[in-house]
Amino acid sequence: MNQNTIDRLGEIVGKDQVSTVAEELACYSYDGTGREYPPGAVVFPSSTAEICRIMELASATPFPVVPRGAGTGMSGGALPVNGGVVMVMSRLNRILEIDRANQIAVVEPGVITGDLRKEAAQHGLFYPPDPASLQFCTMGGNVAECAGGPSAVKYGVTRDYVLGLEAVLPDGSIIHTGVRTAKGVVGYDLTRLLVGSEGTLAIITKITVKLLPAPETRTTLLVLCRSMGEATSLVAAILAHHTPCTLEYMDRTALAIVREQLPFPCPEEAEALLLIELDGRADTVPLATRQLSEFLQSQPGIIQSRTAESAAEARQLWAARRAISPAAFSLKPHKMSEDVVVPRSRLPELVSCTEALSRELGVVIFTFGHAGDGNIHVNIMLDRNVPQEVRQANTAKQLLFEEVLRLGGTLSGEHGIGLTKAPYLSMELDQPTLTLMRQIKKLFDPQDILNPGKIFPLQEAGEKNI
Amino acid sequence: MNQNTIDRLGEIVGKDQVSTVAEELACYSYDGTGREYPPGAVVFPSSTAEICRIMELASATPFPVVPRGAGTGMSGGALPVNGGVVMVMSRLNRILEIDRANQIAVVEPGVITGDLRKEAAQHGLFYPPDPASLQFCTMGGNVAECAGGPSAVKYGVTRDYVLGLEAVLPDGSIIHTGVRTAKGVVGYDLTRLLVGSEGTLAIITKITVKLLPAPETRTTLLVLCRSMGEATSLVAAILAHHTPCTLEYMDRTALAIVREQLPFPCPEEAEALLLIELDGRADTVPLATRQLSEFLQSQPGIIQSRTAESAAEARQLWAARRAISPAAFSLKPHKMSEDVVVPRSRLPELVSCTEALSRELGVVIFTFGHAGDGNIHVNIMLDRNVPQEVRQANTAKQLLFEEVLRLGGTLSGEHGIGLTKAPYLSMELDQPTLTLMRQIKKLFDPQDILNPGKIFPLQEAGEKNI
Repeated sequence: MNQNTIDRLGEIVGKDQVSTVAEELACYSYDGTGREYPPGAVVFPSSTAEICRIMELASATPFPVVPRGAGTGMSGGALPVNGGVVMVMSRLNRILEIDRANQIAVVEPGVITGDLRKEAAQHGLFYPPDPASLQFCTMGGNVAECAGGPSAVKYGVTRDYVLGLEAVLPDGSIIHTGVRTAKGVVGYDLTRLLVGSEGTLAIITKITVKLLPAPETRTTLLVLCRSMGEATSLVAAILAHHTPCTLEYMDRTALAIVREQLPFPCPEEAEALLLIELDGRADTVPLATRQLSEFLQSQPGIIQSRTAESAAEARQLWAARRAISPAAFSLKPHKMSEDVVVPRSRLPELVSCTEALSRELGVVIFTFGHAGDGNIHVNIMLDRNVPQEVRQANTAKQLLFEEVLRLGGTLSGEHGIGLTKAPYLSMELDQPTLTLMRQIKKLFDPQDILNPGKIFPLQEAGEKNI
Repeated sequence: MNQNTIDRLGEIVGKDQVSTVAEELACYSYDGTGREYPPGAVVFPSSTAEICRIMELASATPFPVVPRGAGTGMSGGALPVNGGVVMVMSRLNRILEIDRANQIAVVEPGVITGDLRKEAAQHGLFYPPDPASLQFCTMGGNVAECAGGPSAVKYGVTRDYVLGLEAVLPDGSIIHTGVRTAKGVVGYDLTRLLVGSEGTLAIITKITVKLLPAPETRTTLLVLCRSMGEATSLVAAILAHHTPCTLEYMDRTALAIVREQLPFPCPEEAEALLLIELDGRADTVPLATRQLSEFLQSQPGIIQSRTAESAAEARQLWAARRAISPAAFSLKPHKMSEDVVVPRSRLPELVSCTEALSRELGVVIFTFGHAGDGNIHVNIMLDRNVPQEVRQANTAKQLLFEEVLRLGGTLSGEHGIGLTKAPYLSMELDQPTLTLMRQIKKLFDPQDILNPGKIFPLQEAGEKNI
């Protein structure tokens, strides 16, 4: 970036809040995908007003602006693939309001999701969305990607909690969308249009979310199954009569990776595990837990089902669940993590497909994730330095996506399209729908300065990113 | 409309499915607002393909197209204010699918909401949104307006159930939005952009909704309060610890209108009534009901709180609640019904404002509605043939809206903007936000042929519709 632009950015945010030092740029050049694209500069605004002025400058120059929360995204949303400025939201990190009587919170985008959850808990309230990275990721990033998490099976995703937004458009003007009430139908739903728009339409500067009364208690059940088919078949059966707040699945490989970390011995013949939680009122959860437990005992294919006997045991189970993703690198140095979704009754077909792909292509594939809402993380392991492995992994990904769509599913449940899935977008969206989305992008951002290269595949390119 | 256009419409849908007969046009010239605007023609398509051809013709000619469900809307959404064709969706009335295992339904827009609820119940499932008109209104209309209802306090509104849509754009192309899974973040959220867009962006031709397991049981509680302030203050207190599926409010006047229909004597000193329902599992609802009942007994200002002793008594209470709106015409021949929303802790201020307006302006105003989500129907009664009453009613409406916005509320919770609130839109939305909405309208519908005159105030007009 030229020095004049850097100087003008410095005038807006203060000289010490803009940097072009290589070491600092390196810190903001990667995200959860493990890829790297160094920006031309990194800037740390402290207010909506500064963001407006940055966007006015970006429009006038023009240069790309890539908003960034904590960089935990799994689809490349925070990567400055076309250079330009990475706008780090870490200084807009205030919880502006917790309104206990009306059960809402107003936060700046740089607030860490886990911090909002803690603060809400102080008021007897609860912000449900719980992406795996919740101790690091930010609310702005969660809104931009419409983050989910294990609790989505009962509580829904980020979209279901965002009531209203303040956002800055590429030309520097400020819009206010939505409401701070439970209901509101005044004009078009720009709030939900921005949720999940991956930083391509506007910079989110303030977020009003709905909170719930905090559940009083929580129980954890663990189910070991003889086969992946039997485990995944259980999912729809459980949800027909029970309302767990999480219903997670691990296949044989995931189980093997974390076997040592489980708080009890896991029999060798266990091919799959379900981790189920119930939450709610202290006077009803024990009853619901007993009923679910009895139901599970009546089901085929279960080796063992047990209720965690202490909070410590439950924590250990969750630690094991969260360890899967990082521990997977013991298998291969690189991972393609695809958060596909299928209607939950089709889960057995999905896992049978991944088994077949693994066998036929000689690729290590394992699956785990949010079985309750059909959102399974399919992990294709590879060494990116071995061209043959890259080819086979790409083939597996392509065939997986085809099967997911054949089963009535979708290519991404919570990670977004970003960079990594952009080349596959037209597999799911038909031409008129895709054209309309491109037109919306163009309407908001005619110069393509906001997070360019995301969501939409480059129209020229035949090549696929992996 | 000229005969050539009528002939071409006849070629598309069949001669007997298009009409210009005055008697028939009259049937499709009004809606729930009581206003009348006769269309140039009325057309009854039977398929998405026919709708595409109609829109191609409408774009080429051009002429306005106003999609219509059952015409129960309260803001003029189905009124052909600029003439053109009313497109009645009554022949697209099939429930295409109830997928029990995945708890979703796929319906055509002409399906009556109550029919979907009945069909879902056959499968042990539940479609929660319950607008007062649910025995007549259609799913297409509900989606277009983002309809709510009493159950929204627990279950949310139409927006929260729509997973995906098929829709026809003004140029006749078909788009497919969203998913049939619980999660999905592929591209922009066109689904929620269309929900609540009041027929101004696209014609909805197919709707995929989420269903829930049907609650096993339901109890009804009734609370009579000494004052409106005490009744409305109770609302936030109840919701801090309880999860009712409805929490309705009636003020003194509403109570007077339906007093005779209540299943028990109502003491004269009762100034307000709360109607509360709990639903859920048969083994937990009785306990929750007892707890709520005990809580209520500890609260100030309550004359009487009782649990309906039979399904018949509960039904009678609901019949009284539903009778308010039609019975109100015993007060005055005309009614402005404003479905404003405030944060629920501000409800006492809202009712105190309506009391003051009534007193100061000499206008009959009464309030009832969905107190649980702060969505109160403020009814301003008048005789439209008396200019002084019209003036006073308009003043009351304007001052009410100012107070609602001051309290952090919104002008419409579930009825939409349509025709009746369009002149007030800029009170709530700032200029950049409104401009962006207008640009979105223009992007979808450059010739302004889809439901023109709705949502956006005519830019020229200084005059306000009432």
